Amino acid sequence: MQRYFVRAEQFAGQTVVVTGEDAHHAVRVMRMRTGDRFICSNGADREALVEIVSADPHAVTARVIEERSMTAEPDVDVWIAQSLPKSDKMEFVIQKCTEIGAVRFIPFISERTVVQYDAKKEGKRLERWRKIAKEAAEQAHRNRVPDIGAPLSWKQMLILAEQADLALICHEKEETVNMRAVLARFLSGKKRARAPVALVAIGPEGGFTEREAAEAETAGFVPVRLGRTVLRTETAAMVALTCILYESGEMGD
Amino acid sequence: MQRYFVRAEQFAGQTVVVTGEDAHHAVRVMRMRTGDRFICSNGADREALVEIVSADPHAVTARVIEERSMTAEPDVDVWIAQSLPKSDKMEFVIQKCTEIGAVRFIPFISERTVVQYDAKKEGKRLERWRKIAKEAAEQAHRNRVPDIGAPLSWKQMLILAEQADLALICHEKEETVNMRAVLARFLSGKKRARAPVALVAIGPEGGFTEREAAEAETAGFVPVRLGRTVLRTETAAMVALTCILYESGEMGD
Repeated sequence: MQRYFVRAEQFAGQTVVVTGEDAHHAVRVMRMRTGDRFICSNGADREALVEIVSADPHAVTARVIEERSMTAEPDVDVWIAQSLPKSDKMEFVIQKCTEIGAVRFIPFISERTVVQYDAKKEGKRLERWRKIAKEAAEQAHRNRVPDIGAPLSWKQMLILAEQADLALICHEKEETVNMRAVLARFLSGKKRARAPVALVAIGPEGGFTEREAAEAETAGFVPVRLGRTVLRTETAAMVALTCILYESGEMGD
Repeated sequence: MQRYFVRAEQFAGQTVVVTGEDAHHAVRVMRMRTGDRFICSNGADREALVEIVSADPHAVTARVIEERSMTAEPDVDVWIAQSLPKSDKMEFVIQKCTEIGAVRFIPFISERTVVQYDAKKEGKRLERWRKIAKEAAEQAHRNRVPDIGAPLSWKQMLILAEQADLALICHEKEETVNMRAVLARFLSGKKRARAPVALVAIGPEGGFTEREAAEAETAGFVPVRLGRTVLRTETAAMVALTCILYESGEMGD
């Protein structure tokens, strides 16, 4: 069934108003009419089956038929910290990792980041990233739209390890830490009141420098490698995310 | 270190001759000269560190310095059977799954395949797919270049289950088979003389029909789902492949 995410204020009491591109999509593309139903979510804590009471391409108003439990989310909150890659690879990471189940994207700048940071274009880019995440979440039947912030500096990114229950950094070294053992220990650990947070940091095309790797370890990141092959930067996030969700029982316990 | 795959006949005795685009790449892009070294592989059963004895942009001749053991390959042979997706998504599946470690791609046509099959363009397309696999294998430091065949019919694809030790089909049903349990049982099973083969069949954008799902089960495929979210067709192959390699101990045992 069709699914739209709306801002919390559009979803008050027993009524929801879908506006903008989503209203256009519902009426013009999906040809929805009064009486048709869809699923509406505020992307955070409320989701319902709703029925259209008025269909206009600028605003679709619907009433709640049934509140739905939000059970499509993984039991682990995975945060993807991605050093800005070239061209449209960040969009790719956001789309694919939203489908698979990440809850937060943290773009950051590291020593070997090639992309020029352009503060003027920043707003537009962030808006585009958020649109991609929203659409991927709708398509994947997620309950939540992942959070995406503006790019952080390397030092700002490192501090996030303190907020996470496990922080991993993808970096190849001679003695590889055993990713699976680290994950198994993390996930079988003590029960928490909230979903445990796993943060994964991925380098840019040229990887992290040895100095960055050392600083990350000091900040609490565990270096891991993802198999014996060498993954492109935009592939690493998807693989790491899949491994975490697999170990957490997301693909069957 | 730079890596080139060559055909077996280019790699005879203690000498290897790199030709075509790779020779151009080595001499013009990488600016390699006599005395420079690179890794050369026939993509199947031989890999060596070689040293250039003559560098010409049409043919680079090098001599073997040291034979290398081929240890970068996963312990499970994963075959990706992908119902032809739209636009350039097959290229994407080939590139990403080659990086991660698939050894064979089996494009096929199923009921909901949208792409028009064009026999005239077939040769060119296959050539392009193979080039993508070769380049991804070089970049990922693989020992092997995955095999890619021309698209099969649905019936032809089903028969492949007989050649595999485990055949999975990604299909959502009410009672989902537990992918992790299936994988764990498969991989902990009896030791085989060769790497076990896991075949994964992925549907097109619209998925498989119920009739196809039933036929696949009869042919020996086990239906599995990949988590609670709904993945795009081009994402499913990567996720399934990563799960299989993770369970096989590829990310640390």
